[in-house]
Amino acid sequence: MSELRRDPVTGHWVIIAPERSRRPEDFAPQPVGALDGDLCPFCEGQEAIAGRELLAWRPHGGQPNGPGWRVRVIPNREPALRVESTLGEAPASLLQSWGGLGAHEVVIESADHRATLGKMSVDEVWRVLWTWRERLRDLRRDTRLKSFLIVKNVGAAAGATLDHPHSQILALPFPPPSIERESKGAQDYLTRHARCVYCALVAEEIADDRRVISSDGGAVAFAPYASRVPFEVWVISRAHDASFDEAGDDSLRAVAERLNDVMSRLEATLVSPAYSLLLHTSPIGESHRASYHWHLEIVPRLTPVSGLAWEGGVAINPVPPEEAAQVLRTHDL
Amino acid sequence: MSELRRDPVTGHWVIIAPERSRRPEDFAPQPVGALDGDLCPFCEGQEAIAGRELLAWRPHGGQPNGPGWRVRVIPNREPALRVESTLGEAPASLLQSWGGLGAHEVVIESADHRATLGKMSVDEVWRVLWTWRERLRDLRRDTRLKSFLIVKNVGAAAGATLDHPHSQILALPFPPPSIERESKGAQDYLTRHARCVYCALVAEEIADDRRVISSDGGAVAFAPYASRVPFEVWVISRAHDASFDEAGDDSLRAVAERLNDVMSRLEATLVSPAYSLLLHTSPIGESHRASYHWHLEIVPRLTPVSGLAWEGGVAINPVPPEEAAQVLRTHDL
Repeated sequence: MSELRRDPVTGHWVIIAPERSRRPEDFAPQPVGALDGDLCPFCEGQEAIAGRELLAWRPHGGQPNGPGWRVRVIPNREPALRVESTLGEAPASLLQSWGGLGAHEVVIESADHRATLGKMSVDEVWRVLWTWRERLRDLRRDTRLKSFLIVKNVGAAAGATLDHPHSQILALPFPPPSIERESKGAQDYLTRHARCVYCALVAEEIADDRRVISSDGGAVAFAPYASRVPFEVWVISRAHDASFDEAGDDSLRAVAERLNDVMSRLEATLVSPAYSLLLHTSPIGESHRASYHWHLEIVPRLTPVSGLAWEGGVAINPVPPEEAAQVLRTHDL
Repeated sequence: MSELRRDPVTGHWVIIAPERSRRPEDFAPQPVGALDGDLCPFCEGQEAIAGRELLAWRPHGGQPNGPGWRVRVIPNREPALRVESTLGEAPASLLQSWGGLGAHEVVIESADHRATLGKMSVDEVWRVLWTWRERLRDLRRDTRLKSFLIVKNVGAAAGATLDHPHSQILALPFPPPSIERESKGAQDYLTRHARCVYCALVAEEIADDRRVISSDGGAVAFAPYASRVPFEVWVISRAHDASFDEAGDDSLRAVAERLNDVMSRLEATLVSPAYSLLLHTSPIGESHRASYHWHLEIVPRLTPVSGLAWEGGVAINPVPPEEAAQVLRTHDL
């Protein structure tokens, strides 16, 4: 069983998940398996190996846990957190631990082993976002879960261990530090300016224009002003919704269009880069409704994350976002 | 010239340093140069290539900027921050930027291209710590500088671009998020318990014993309770000093002994792992004197930093620190 531990000084959370335990000699660097299609557990026909589905989209019908799906959601085979766990009571000690309560699911985003967010159709990207939303709508009925993260790691450099396009959903009994910082910053801004900071940011980026990669009436893709790495990209809907599961179909489709467009630009310009994509969505709670604004952050992994950036929190970025946006917006698709 | 930018929501700082700019095609993964000794700019005899020294230790005397040194400090060739810069005034906009004020130095830790913190003698490790302290004592005379980070990246997976043993000193005009979080946590603990949280932590770890790798009357090396990655190790002096530059010789020697010991265990157990080592030292200010406690954090890079860990702030660690400590403490040196 896994365990949630909190750093006694910084308050950072760590999931100690010894089910995944390996011995020191197992840590030698391994390339990501460029698995043959017929050996990949996420390919069509391997449903029995992948595990029983929580949700699937079968445009032409078919039986659950069989072929015919286009998107499929399964529990993580080695879940870091489980709904069957309980938090338990923290000891009075400086060193506190809780049970590994939560959920950890895998979204298989396509039956095509070689699909990418840039090569998929807009409809296929929209179906991935729809699937994420369906799962979050279901998961948030468990009131013990307070926050949700969806992360997509592509390539060995981003920590991916399988090539087949997939993302992970993590439901947590606490807001993670990233979302806590954001929601605090957003609430401070709302208090001072009576406005959503993300709505203000979108307006300022559109007016400035130098970091905008593509935009339309529904959504914007831009290189953020304080980009931590070269070619960082955010995609945000113009419709103000704090929580991803409350976003309407129009909002989701607008983001699917921008995401598909910007990913095809990134994939072509950087030649299939490793990257992480994180869905940032509001923690549970009415107090975030006016201040928070869900969005996607795409962080290419062109070089390893330095100690300064990860542990120190100070990133040194050699490519100004204005230059990255210029390269991406002028790329001929 | 570089520029300091602040994320308008999270408050995170980023150094945009376009002197280091590269084009998209330059981002293809490159192995760390296993440079021949005679081509390495940090080897003895290459002083003219490395740059003019700010400080050097020459046990048998000799001329500055010539051979005979055992530790040598030079300005970073492509400094992310410079003392010649000014902060300037931030615009009233949501998007704020300051001049790249600060300092960015390189400590060449040994004349031996293949030296490691585990293979060096205790005296040699002590001389590295002494050099760091000398530089911080000098840098903090510039009252515009508010915080210091020292980071050592070893191996390509940790972002190192040169094999020769070296570390980087970064002086910043603001406390970085990592140190800000720590110092806030430490001040909260002091307010509630009238005690340094790190002193309390050391006492609790010694009493518990399961995560201690090695200890003596002067310093302790242990696997932290909320270890973010397998085999994370902290080294801390039992003497309470907030700021590294105020640490006494005895304290430095005790930490040099523990660091040398624990690094030889890590290097042998994990077979020369990539890792980052960060010196955490108090930001400038009397208010931190009772609450903060300088220490070293060593983070092995056995697998790439996942999107969940870096951007989400939620690390999943498959090796409980109790197991890591057990492996390291029983390793026969």
